[in-house]
Amino acid sequence: MGLLFKNEGHVVFKPAKDVDLTPASSELYLRANVKAPRLAGFLVKVFAWFLESRIFGTLLLFILKRDNLIHKLVTNAELEEPPVYVPLHPFEDKEEQDVKQVGSELSPPELVQQAIECLPVSLEKTLNGSNFSFRHWTISDYSRAYTSGEITPRTVAEHLIAAIHASSTPPLHMSFFINYKAEDILKQATESTLRYEQGVPISALDGVPIAIKDEIDCLPYPTTGGTKWLHNLRPCTDDACCVKCLRLCGAVLVGKTNMHELGAGTSGINPHYGATRNPYNRSKISGGSSSGSAAVVASGLCPVALGVDGGGSVRMPAALCGVVGLKPTFGRVPHSGVLPLTWTVGMIGILAGTVEDAFIVYAAISCQLSPRQLSVSPKVNFPLLNSTKPISSIKLAKYGEWFNDCSDDIRECCSNALERLQKQYDWKTVEVTIPEIEMMRLAHYVTIGSECSTSLSSFLEKLDFKELGWDARVALAVYGAFSSKEYIKAQKIRNRQMQFHMNLFTQADVIVSPTVGYCFLNMVTAYTILDDALDTGELDYINGAALVRYSIAGNFLGLPAVTVPVGYDKSGLPIGLQLIGKPWSEATLIHIAFALQKIWYKGL
Amino acid sequence: MGLLFKNEGHVVFKPAKDVDLTPASSELYLRANVKAPRLAGFLVKVFAWFLESRIFGTLLLFILKRDNLIHKLVTNAELEEPPVYVPLHPFEDKEEQDVKQVGSELSPPELVQQAIECLPVSLEKTLNGSNFSFRHWTISDYSRAYTSGEITPRTVAEHLIAAIHASSTPPLHMSFFINYKAEDILKQATESTLRYEQGVPISALDGVPIAIKDEIDCLPYPTTGGTKWLHNLRPCTDDACCVKCLRLCGAVLVGKTNMHELGAGTSGINPHYGATRNPYNRSKISGGSSSGSAAVVASGLCPVALGVDGGGSVRMPAALCGVVGLKPTFGRVPHSGVLPLTWTVGMIGILAGTVEDAFIVYAAISCQLSPRQLSVSPKVNFPLLNSTKPISSIKLAKYGEWFNDCSDDIRECCSNALERLQKQYDWKTVEVTIPEIEMMRLAHYVTIGSECSTSLSSFLEKLDFKELGWDARVALAVYGAFSSKEYIKAQKIRNRQMQFHMNLFTQADVIVSPTVGYCFLNMVTAYTILDDALDTGELDYINGAALVRYSIAGNFLGLPAVTVPVGYDKSGLPIGLQLIGKPWSEATLIHIAFALQKIWYKGL
Repeated sequence: MGLLFKNEGHVVFKPAKDVDLTPASSELYLRANVKAPRLAGFLVKVFAWFLESRIFGTLLLFILKRDNLIHKLVTNAELEEPPVYVPLHPFEDKEEQDVKQVGSELSPPELVQQAIECLPVSLEKTLNGSNFSFRHWTISDYSRAYTSGEITPRTVAEHLIAAIHASSTPPLHMSFFINYKAEDILKQATESTLRYEQGVPISALDGVPIAIKDEIDCLPYPTTGGTKWLHNLRPCTDDACCVKCLRLCGAVLVGKTNMHELGAGTSGINPHYGATRNPYNRSKISGGSSSGSAAVVASGLCPVALGVDGGGSVRMPAALCGVVGLKPTFGRVPHSGVLPLTWTVGMIGILAGTVEDAFIVYAAISCQLSPRQLSVSPKVNFPLLNSTKPISSIKLAKYGEWFNDCSDDIRECCSNALERLQKQYDWKTVEVTIPEIEMMRLAHYVTIGSECSTSLSSFLEKLDFKELGWDARVALAVYGAFSSKEYIKAQKIRNRQMQFHMNLFTQADVIVSPTVGYCFLNMVTAYTILDDALDTGELDYINGAALVRYSIAGNFLGLPAVTVPVGYDKSGLPIGLQLIGKPWSEATLIHIAFALQKIWYKGL
Repeated sequence: MGLLFKNEGHVVFKPAKDVDLTPASSELYLRANVKAPRLAGFLVKVFAWFLESRIFGTLLLFILKRDNLIHKLVTNAELEEPPVYVPLHPFEDKEEQDVKQVGSELSPPELVQQAIECLPVSLEKTLNGSNFSFRHWTISDYSRAYTSGEITPRTVAEHLIAAIHASSTPPLHMSFFINYKAEDILKQATESTLRYEQGVPISALDGVPIAIKDEIDCLPYPTTGGTKWLHNLRPCTDDACCVKCLRLCGAVLVGKTNMHELGAGTSGINPHYGATRNPYNRSKISGGSSSGSAAVVASGLCPVALGVDGGGSVRMPAALCGVVGLKPTFGRVPHSGVLPLTWTVGMIGILAGTVEDAFIVYAAISCQLSPRQLSVSPKVNFPLLNSTKPISSIKLAKYGEWFNDCSDDIRECCSNALERLQKQYDWKTVEVTIPEIEMMRLAHYVTIGSECSTSLSSFLEKLDFKELGWDARVALAVYGAFSSKEYIKAQKIRNRQMQFHMNLFTQADVIVSPTVGYCFLNMVTAYTILDDALDTGELDYINGAALVRYSIAGNFLGLPAVTVPVGYDKSGLPIGLQLIGKPWSEATLIHIAFALQKIWYKGL
């Protein structure tokens, strides 16, 4: 075994290189052992008060860390690997199948054009014979309708504004947006309309409505990060780099989407701006933290939205809302202009109705240099989705015990999708073992907590804590309590996982898993929003851990990952299948996601 | 000003790119503000007891961090730069003047041969006309004498063993070595003698005695790290990579040198193995933590020794003992087989009697690949020291206020050496400002403390604290008290300093400074060893801060640096001048050091 439980106090890790990754491995799959009651309402307040007091807080944090095995698996762990602090992988000019290599010196509209040229000529073909009763508009739909004059961006904007208004007010009250300005939307749409009238649209994104998570700078809006105060202390003075790219392509930026306060939770229940409701069932959560971005795409208001994924925060709500969620390799998309809540785990991600639309927007925002981009990626591979013969000899790695650690609905649906994928394309599944997944989750938690606490420290000093939601107060109290030893140990665990995953990628092209797990209390994917959580937020670490069960490698190891809808559970809520790729292998990942989507469309 | 004292509580940093680095800069030079009494004997024990108790310890650490400005300058500092965790610089195939490019695929003996070919034909020429009454043997001296048959390695070893014995026992009791085995030395020397007899010496290092700091694995010795217990918990099972290189060259490894316990101090006073005494004056400290390695070279027992430099630990004792100390770029020399006391600041360094000898051993141990070596440096530049015309148009950066923050003796001596260097070679001095040097020292302290505490944590758990020296107990109590926020903030300060230094290196080739500073209590360089410190060790953070004043950039930023003796103070103790180079510019650094040495020889 890679880890040896030495005594009650701590574990000793075997050198990473000696750990067996085959299905015959004796590695234990350790289920998440979260010990924390669900708290909402008054109890959250009491808990926050205790945590914030010096003496009780110290004691309580000690108990919490101990009971949740942080002491045992992280703090006191013995492991010989040196720490790795940034999950940045050296960029290599890879041989990928069926790709077009594109230079990063191209402008965003040129990159979009390159992406469009990789798509099948007509998407309708894919949908022929499907039993869709209605279908959301894709980027191509908008582009074709604008170009043909069937509709103008201005008209779309007017309808959109009315729809956003309706979604934001009773009886719907979906809480999709934190901020949107009708006049700003109309101004952009009018300019776009003029370009189409003059026959000079900038790109396929010209006039296409796109929403932005309120963690990303986008003028003329403040960047609240889901709070009532952060934008006052950190004014938004410019578009984020990715928003600039979209604007350069002519996209209509329609406002700032709701999110879990400070990204410090997974439910998308925001006490200040409302609980984002799931378009599939408004009594259910949308997931988070990019809750609004997932929901606006699922509702059909926008074909695409941007999110930020620090611990599954794009992929998880995408799965719960039945849309595609793509998180590129760490360093691929410039991070400047995103709230610096973390430095080593958070990355911009794309939520879209289809794989093609995620790909087009990925093309628009990737490949730009920025200070964050520590390595050089002078070239980017785009997948040739219009290739006549399917990409061949893909190997899919599956870790059975982990894959199956979810509800029956999810397991059956994901297994089924995987099986059909194999059959259709003659791809192989490789059974593997991924050791120490639960340690990785805890180490990631220590990392994201430490970084978030540090990044906010100068703001928190000036803050009246009453302005914070109660669940965020608790999260910040826990985040602020990690020692440098815990942070460094977590980075040693990161080193091991990097080694494990790089080893696995010598055996397979992608790792497949469900996108979210389940927990004992709620056997469904998106659980119910309870009334007591609306004002205080909700502490539900057990459900939270289940929701992020499959997400962590994407963040902690900086690997690209994508979730694709593959079915529904018994209650009609969506289910997503996740693909985790090698560093810089977005093209392969998009290719496989596209194949998966085709299979799903056929199955409907 | 780059930093703005907002209130008593903390400082706000201006973005690094906006900070003025010219001599006209309004940046304040902040003198070290160390608030800690010198403690030795019983007081150290009381202090350690207090620190180790849960309640008093927490309070005391809070006060210590506050009084020493760690809260103000690190913990609560506001700075926008993201953290940099590893001071690794991308390797570029640089254009350096007067160098020979050598491939890293060569074996250590081949590398040594390449280095030898870069040296002037006969070193005696340099020394002609100097008024040396006697001179230590250099590597060339040994090599020539062995080759001519004037003496054999075996005979040298016999004399050496007698000399080590004499140095280790009363009345001298110099405490140079922690471990040496006569039979092992004789065995190696006999084998070397045989090779010379057969006319097949392996390299110029064949038969040359070299000592190894007891922080580096070297069979058949345990690696104590200056403790009485670490070798029991971490057995030494193989040579460190650098030791393997030296063995492959035929060097005779003569034993393990004394060091400050766990490298956690600067005096070289070790309560278990004795206070290493300065060969220039046995009542004075040798500096540390590589105390024994500096002293054996200064005493003439070995021409070269290896040390480890985590916070000036090679350069500082080298300066105090009047020898050359070279610390290469982070990542240049493989780190495997060195006690993992830190991951991002400690690097192997070379202590030698002459610049040429430091260069030869640098050649032998550099360029080998290892897990630590994160970047690839496929080529290494060797300086052509035999070039007939001197290297031209070197620019030396000098920050006046920092340079002058030392005793009159040191300032005059270093200024004088610098002036002569300029005149002799027509080089230019560029006046610059290096901002926030004191913040860098504190951030480095937080970093080395956190890493050391983490690396030792699994050992400390099993340890009876009585086995630790009292000063090490105090150090470990402080090291273990840093939060993840403090560690991450320190890495943000590191980012700023990286930017400052990279900017400075666009203006100059090297930064010049004295190697050690001074403190108010001891106006001389190497202070006196007091009797009360012998058993408990000594806490003297004020003197310690003065000793490492000029060392930090070499460790925290991973820059190559070298100290060269340039004179003596009033009491006859040596003074060193330090050169800090661009990343990977060891060749230029050695070239300038060689020029500096020539000037010093002429001046004698």
